Amino acid sequence: MENLPFEDLDGDTLHEECGVFGILGHPDASTLTALGLHALQHRGQEAAGLVSFDGKQFHAEKRMGLVGDHYTDPSVLARLPGQMAIGHVRYSTTGETALRNVQPLFAELEVGGIAIAHNGNFTNGLTLRKQLIADGAIFQATSDTEVVLHLIARSKHISSSDRFVDAIRHVEGGYSMLALTRTKLIAARDPIGIRPLVMGELDGKPIFCSETCALDIIGARYIRDVENGEVIVCEIQPDGSISIDSTRDEKVGPERLCLFEYVYFARPDSIVGGRSVYTARKAMGKHLAQEAPVEADVVVPVPDGGTPAAIGYAQASGIPFELGIIRNHYVGRTFIEPTQQIRAFGVKLKHSANRAMIEGKRVVLVDDSIVRGTTSLKIVQMIRDAGASEVHIRVASPMIFYPDFYGIDTPDAERLLANQYSSLDAMCKYIGADSLAFLSLDGLYRAVGGESRNDDAPQFTDHYFTGDYPTRLQDQETPPSTVRKLSVMANYG
Amino acid sequence: MENLPFEDLDGDTLHEECGVFGILGHPDASTLTALGLHALQHRGQEAAGLVSFDGKQFHAEKRMGLVGDHYTDPSVLARLPGQMAIGHVRYSTTGETALRNVQPLFAELEVGGIAIAHNGNFTNGLTLRKQLIADGAIFQATSDTEVVLHLIARSKHISSSDRFVDAIRHVEGGYSMLALTRTKLIAARDPIGIRPLVMGELDGKPIFCSETCALDIIGARYIRDVENGEVIVCEIQPDGSISIDSTRDEKVGPERLCLFEYVYFARPDSIVGGRSVYTARKAMGKHLAQEAPVEADVVVPVPDGGTPAAIGYAQASGIPFELGIIRNHYVGRTFIEPTQQIRAFGVKLKHSANRAMIEGKRVVLVDDSIVRGTTSLKIVQMIRDAGASEVHIRVASPMIFYPDFYGIDTPDAERLLANQYSSLDAMCKYIGADSLAFLSLDGLYRAVGGESRNDDAPQFTDHYFTGDYPTRLQDQETPPSTVRKLSVMANYG
Amino acid sequence: MENLPFEDLDGDTLHEECGVFGILGHPDASTLTALGLHALQHRGQEAAGLVSFDGKQFHAEKRMGLVGDHYTDPSVLARLPGQMAIGHVRYSTTGETALRNVQPLFAELEVGGIAIAHNGNFTNGLTLRKQLIADGAIFQATSDTEVVLHLIARSKHISSSDRFVDAIRHVEGGYSMLALTRTKLIAARDPIGIRPLVMGELDGKPIFCSETCALDIIGARYIRDVENGEVIVCEIQPDGSISIDSTRDEKVGPERLCLFEYVYFARPDSIVGGRSVYTARKAMGKHLAQEAPVEADVVVPVPDGGTPAAIGYAQASGIPFELGIIRNHYVGRTFIEPTQQIRAFGVKLKHSANRAMIEGKRVVLVDDSIVRGTTSLKIVQMIRDAGASEVHIRVASPMIFYPDFYGIDTPDAERLLANQYSSLDAMCKYIGADSLAFLSLDGLYRAVGGESRNDDAPQFTDHYFTGDYPTRLQDQETPPSTVRKLSVMANYG
Amino acid sequence: MENLPFEDLDGDTLHEECGVFGILGHPDASTLTALGLHALQHRGQEAAGLVSFDGKQFHAEKRMGLVGDHYTDPSVLARLPGQMAIGHVRYSTTGETALRNVQPLFAELEVGGIAIAHNGNFTNGLTLRKQLIADGAIFQATSDTEVVLHLIARSKHISSSDRFVDAIRHVEGGYSMLALTRTKLIAARDPIGIRPLVMGELDGKPIFCSETCALDIIGARYIRDVENGEVIVCEIQPDGSISIDSTRDEKVGPERLCLFEYVYFARPDSIVGGRSVYTARKAMGKHLAQEAPVEADVVVPVPDGGTPAAIGYAQASGIPFELGIIRNHYVGRTFIEPTQQIRAFGVKLKHSANRAMIEGKRVVLVDDSIVRGTTSLKIVQMIRDAGASEVHIRVASPMIFYPDFYGIDTPDAERLLANQYSSLDAMCKYIGADSLAFLSLDGLYRAVGGESRNDDAPQFTDHYFTGDYPTRLQDQETPPSTVRKLSVMANYG
Repeated sequence: MENLPFEDLDGDTLHEECGVFGILGHPDASTLTALGLHALQHRGQEAAGLVSFDGKQFHAEKRMGLVGDHYTDPSVLARLPGQMAIGHVRYSTTGETALRNVQPLFAELEVGGIAIAHNGNFTNGLTLRKQLIADGAIFQATSDTEVVLHLIARSKHISSSDRFVDAIRHVEGGYSMLALTRTKLIAARDPIGIRPLVMGELDGKPIFCSETCALDIIGARYIRDVENGEVIVCEIQPDGSISIDSTRDEKVGPERLCLFEYVYFARPDSIVGGRSVYTARKAMGKHLAQEAPVEADVVVPVPDGGTPAAIGYAQASGIPFELGIIRNHYVGRTFIEPTQQIRAFGVKLKHSANRAMIEGKRVVLVDDSIVRGTTSLKIVQMIRDAGASEVHIRVASPMIFYPDFYGIDTPDAERLLANQYSSLDAMCKYIGADSLAFLSLDGLYRAVGGESRNDDAPQFTDHYFTGDYPTRLQDQETPPSTVRKLSVMANYG
Repeated sequence: MENLPFEDLDGDTLHEECGVFGILGHPDASTLTALGLHALQHRGQEAAGLVSFDGKQFHAEKRMGLVGDHYTDPSVLARLPGQMAIGHVRYSTTGETALRNVQPLFAELEVGGIAIAHNGNFTNGLTLRKQLIADGAIFQATSDTEVVLHLIARSKHISSSDRFVDAIRHVEGGYSMLALTRTKLIAARDPIGIRPLVMGELDGKPIFCSETCALDIIGARYIRDVENGEVIVCEIQPDGSISIDSTRDEKVGPERLCLFEYVYFARPDSIVGGRSVYTARKAMGKHLAQEAPVEADVVVPVPDGGTPAAIGYAQASGIPFELGIIRNHYVGRTFIEPTQQIRAFGVKLKHSANRAMIEGKRVVLVDDSIVRGTTSLKIVQMIRDAGASEVHIRVASPMIFYPDFYGIDTPDAERLLANQYSSLDAMCKYIGADSLAFLSLDGLYRAVGGESRNDDAPQFTDHYFTGDYPTRLQDQETPPSTVRKLSVMANYG
Repeated sequence: MENLPFEDLDGDTLHEECGVFGILGHPDASTLTALGLHALQHRGQEAAGLVSFDGKQFHAEKRMGLVGDHYTDPSVLARLPGQMAIGHVRYSTTGETALRNVQPLFAELEVGGIAIAHNGNFTNGLTLRKQLIADGAIFQATSDTEVVLHLIARSKHISSSDRFVDAIRHVEGGYSMLALTRTKLIAARDPIGIRPLVMGELDGKPIFCSETCALDIIGARYIRDVENGEVIVCEIQPDGSISIDSTRDEKVGPERLCLFEYVYFARPDSIVGGRSVYTARKAMGKHLAQEAPVEADVVVPVPDGGTPAAIGYAQASGIPFELGIIRNHYVGRTFIEPTQQIRAFGVKLKHSANRAMIEGKRVVLVDDSIVRGTTSLKIVQMIRDAGASEVHIRVASPMIFYPDFYGIDTPDAERLLANQYSSLDAMCKYIGADSLAFLSLDGLYRAVGGESRNDDAPQFTDHYFTGDYPTRLQDQETPPSTVRKLSVMANYG
Repeated sequence: MENLPFEDLDGDTLHEECGVFGILGHPDASTLTALGLHALQHRGQEAAGLVSFDGKQFHAEKRMGLVGDHYTDPSVLARLPGQMAIGHVRYSTTGETALRNVQPLFAELEVGGIAIAHNGNFTNGLTLRKQLIADGAIFQATSDTEVVLHLIARSKHISSSDRFVDAIRHVEGGYSMLALTRTKLIAARDPIGIRPLVMGELDGKPIFCSETCALDIIGARYIRDVENGEVIVCEIQPDGSISIDSTRDEKVGPERLCLFEYVYFARPDSIVGGRSVYTARKAMGKHLAQEAPVEADVVVPVPDGGTPAAIGYAQASGIPFELGIIRNHYVGRTFIEPTQQIRAFGVKLKHSANRAMIEGKRVVLVDDSIVRGTTSLKIVQMIRDAGASEVHIRVASPMIFYPDFYGIDTPDAERLLANQYSSLDAMCKYIGADSLAFLSLDGLYRAVGGESRNDDAPQFTDHYFTGDYPTRLQDQETPPSTVRKLSVMANYG
């Protein structure tokens, strides 16, 4: 659930690109947006941005760092007046780390300004970017989202919402997107419905956000999920009332949500696709206990991601659940660039073994997923050093073989553990455990949705496990280009 | 276990003053000290300081903020060369927040410099300060520790260790203290042994630190606790070997460790006074289940402090343990001074109800302690809003009636919940729970030490519960003075 | 010559927009550019930017503040590798103060990137901006220069230099502009030649910069002025040699340099339009002494702008030149927003009377120009307070009646002293002097160029004195628009 | 007059330690003090500090950098309430650069606090420091001034003013010192009167400051110089009136002001020892013209220090005064640590030749003094490069042979130009001039005081020229010690 800077160095976690939040017609629009983004912080800790419109002018604030580092400051919120706002938290997949890449992005149109915020990734973003540059567009940064902005600016439609719909018709991939114009809040979700997006309301005013936890923090009511391929346009009318219009591409098939939202990304207290994430994770642990039982003294979660599955495993197996690993919450910011000596302490900066629960015991370690395996290796070593007599690893998701192109930052395929070793035994030996087991794909489907995978029409997208990509991958079909890398490296100090 | 800034505003947690770490004769002295302090960060998040000696010169670095924000930076560590170092993390009880108060403190003596770091509080610090000022001493800041520094500087003994022993004979109260001179690392613990201090070794070099978790992070071995009233002097000899001498005041009685170290302060993976803190907390939960059983569907910890006791309660009662409250780890720094509007969201900035585990359920909420009760009130409300059918609070420690004077920051006595309501029922009603129970004092003694309280010679100090202070309180006997408040308010840059 | 922050508050000085510097083919390109910009700092103290190209990638650095605050830092220069660079110092006329407005500006083109830096102002910038937005261009900031960037990106020509020439054909007004592409350094000057631009060489490599003082600091040789309406394209050839091509619009008439370059903007040691600025200023003082003699004891310059003219006045009149006003060089940065109380000390923060040279004396105060007169008023008061028996003001330029639209920031016309009082006597009375005289327009022409004004074809542009604008003013013909003010207020920070 | 950072690297200027300012009983005490310090900024640009007392509490602010960078900020001044304040600007002679060394220094006494600010240097500071440390005093930093603070704290007298007088009786050397207690402003000057200190008044309230220019900026009236060996105690009485008492050591002889105040340090518009500094400098130039005439075309000052003497030289010789060197005022802060490449540009970063006034001319360069000669060397080269046919250097003070111990930072004796070459010819050759001449000591005495040096009782102190030190030099008689260098190197945040 959480991506701390030091772990990034090892590249042994997956990263979600973004979280979005928007609200229309509420007097506390920017404060509520800041709170919503705070609840979505686990979806991106690199940077956060807000745009509000006060009836006359748009206001934008962008900052590197956490929402709570900046957007609870009265002077910052005072610079974001108005009854409508959208916001964005970001971990970068495409685009270097730079304030220019921080969303929402903004464009001045002939009919007034428009700001957009986007969670996901386009599979034809690079192709579109090249076409736009050839046609005289000037790009400021490297994020895919800027492509949409140019498509909007160049659309021949008049109204901003028509231009928005026109623009997203050109993009392919996974996206949940919000747009803010002088009178409208627009929400859109890609035809497959890969990334989540929900609709709620507070005091009768519409809200859109990535997860329900962002509704909970402000006491807003969940209404429904935005459907795959749907565009919802909310507009403030001259009398102050708000109209809500939904259109949906008729050609779209059934939704296929990203399974990793359940495995790792979404907050456990969120309801995603109508299902409790916490309950799904406990069920993964339960299925795992059934698929891969083991005789042991304690079930120990790898915190915090593995905790719900560990509780499920413990309840299903009857082995006591214990906090055998204690997490240090005080990992500072400069741990991003520690000395080599400190870096060598690796996982111990964040985790420590609780010797009293480990020494002389047979330990079942439950983790949510394994990416490259380097962290697992260190944790097993730490548990052994604390005196465990046996260490059994149980992973609450299948092996990862393929990269993602829809907004999850995956390491190069050859660095994935599953691609480095030909057998489970070899992996187990590498990690140093006494046994190793992964949840089956079918077990995962049943834990999340209650039913086995429908191979003719899979209920979710599971391409990282199966290679079954739900869209074409246009950018992958062309040779790599330097255009994606902005040709100016800029420091605006 | 963790004190986050926003909660501080409510004053509804207790704060430990400090943690200390020191090592002698190791080539990586300052890096190891930084890592040790990182493991002790839960004892003080306000500021951190390190002093090293490189054979020729002392080097000091002090910073507001977390250890990991500063002391993993290669350039900072490079400014702390040498084979001996001591360090300190701090949450302030006496002394305003200012870099001048950040420890270790340093004095130039005729025989060379001395740096000291201190966890605890003196009960005659103010009285001594007045005497020293009358005698021409110039104080730089408001911390008690500076008193010891002046006593050392004015001691008529020659050697720095003799001066140190001479100085601490004048102070009363609770202290675990480290000193660094040109050749020595000195450790001392007060005659009652209120604050913890342990001795370990790495590569044959002596280490002293507040808790064993600071040994674990660097792979050091625990040797023994420094005893109450003991002074241990480690000295580098001309041949590079290290001598270790211990002296102990013969008049001291048995140790009486602070019970709150077990209830709340120490890290669960630490061994304090020879006992696993995690095991003690689980035992508190177990005794609490026996003393105050309740029919319920789920046991939910108030994270993170209540988690071990909740596991104990669940195991003893057979009621399932569930994460019914999800904690947001991304509470930013400026949450220290949020807008009034955001402040109103209070506990929800840090905690959110996991509705799937709460709705329609009878919930046992387990917390480590209740100070003022304002946080409990909000958490009960949050759990009720999430649809709980019943909410029962179980507190894994007795009611708090009295202030501490040994290094724990307690609110004014009249603001303590136990002093505001005359009956348990009244408290329960205030908090809004269906039932409320506290662990008995005897239950706590048995959970921690295995035996009931020996009223003739209590095994621990428990003055916040009983008013039975283990030392005289000299500063409390004199009228309050303005001297404690430094008469210059200074802002250096 | 110098524009200090506190004076800005009074709006009683004129400000030049910018200075530019570029070099091609030199291994120390960015260091030399930084030094050149340092020498041009008097043309803009608000911000500075550099762009270099290292054969593979462009590198950009932008900073608010002085060149010497940032660009002498080894780590900043290390981020600007390559043998070609352009740079810019800026004081803003159009465009708010924001890093996004700091030049050089950069665009990714199909054929590679291009960076541009611009001194001057377009008289049809607003009109072009509106047309571009209607056509789908996305503007990032408010500077006029961005218009050129979009025109380049949209040009149908292939090569970057053809696109550049195509783009500047659309703009009207005053400009001296540099562009950097992957192989070329391009210099262009507007058809009237309002703003200066010179060509030099160092080690055989071409340099372009606003004034010769930027050549002097690096020991480069002055070659010639870029002519009005001329575009010079320097290109690195595959063999490392540099080709230089010049084209010039055949329709352009004779150059008409801005007279204020001589009166105030250019550094006294620069050669502008082939004439020593210092010599021109001394000649202004000499003509002023002839036109407006006065019996007095001392000639005192208003430092530093009035010093050369005061020396000329003293030499011509035989009255001794004395430093009767001492300038305080230590005007700090926060003087930008002082307390009201400190602001009331006004001119005394920067200037103080040297009583020994003033008391009991008849003083001739020589200044370069008078804009609103508020500073003159305070200086006269200060001189009188120091005991002067008489104060005579002599201004080394004519009265200012009209705003500039070519890159000089002038106050609203009605706030100009010359427009507030109908007679010289009334002005003199307002300022509090015993006498007041301005240099005649003809005197100025003769001081600068040696000849009287040719009314049929004036040798210089003198519109602020005469209203005789050398171009049409298209933006002034349309009603004011909000488009110029960017509709998003952004803080990226 | 001005000491810019880059020049410091070359060590080719002298630096004054400090300037002081204090005021008692004025409602705008801290604002007036900030303005006074701004006027004294030339005496120290490294750091500035203010202490005020508001009737209840002292308030202190210390900052590295210029007065105008910090103390005009309303929020900083708001933290300095009260009707009495003292302040200090500093360039360090003893003591490293650190905020802990920035004055005023403060001590809490039994009778209340005291703050002191000091210009000068003690010749027995090190000796006293050792004695105090042996007696248990704890030093925080390395400045001499802290010695006085400890002597005050340890004095057996009761009142703060008696303690102050008691304390300064122990110190030897040069000092002008201010102290602020809860009711008093105290001023003291050393028995020789080496450093200047003047008394003024504004609205009937007493002011003390280093130079009269600090009175001029706030419109205060000069009353008289504090006499050598005098202590003036101003005290607010219960009725709000102010009593002023002066005591003076009867044994003191006549004052001997430091000649360098006239040559270089004091601002030209100040009256020092009753004499106009500007007039004295012009007289130095006049005597120099008489002592060392030369046939030439222009007299060019080395700005800004040499300008008054150059005017005097020009007036006496009849050769025209011209600005042949233009100074760049925009030398940024990071020029302190430029790249080696930029450093090589040396003097050209600050000065440039005005070729129009130099080319083909015989130039007389007038400078105030020569320390190591390295700057002169570069300036001569620059003037020659600009085409001068002859370069004659005239220095308006004698050769410097000896170090100062009274508050002027001089290079090691062997690095002084006068000690490196045995003859004037050799020096001239090293510098590369056609001729070189220094003002005679007698010429300097006559320029400043109107009379020749009275060798039996010199009217000034001139030890850097003659070796005739006006006090004993106790610290120089003992072997060098490491105590002066604080044995802890500290970095606080």
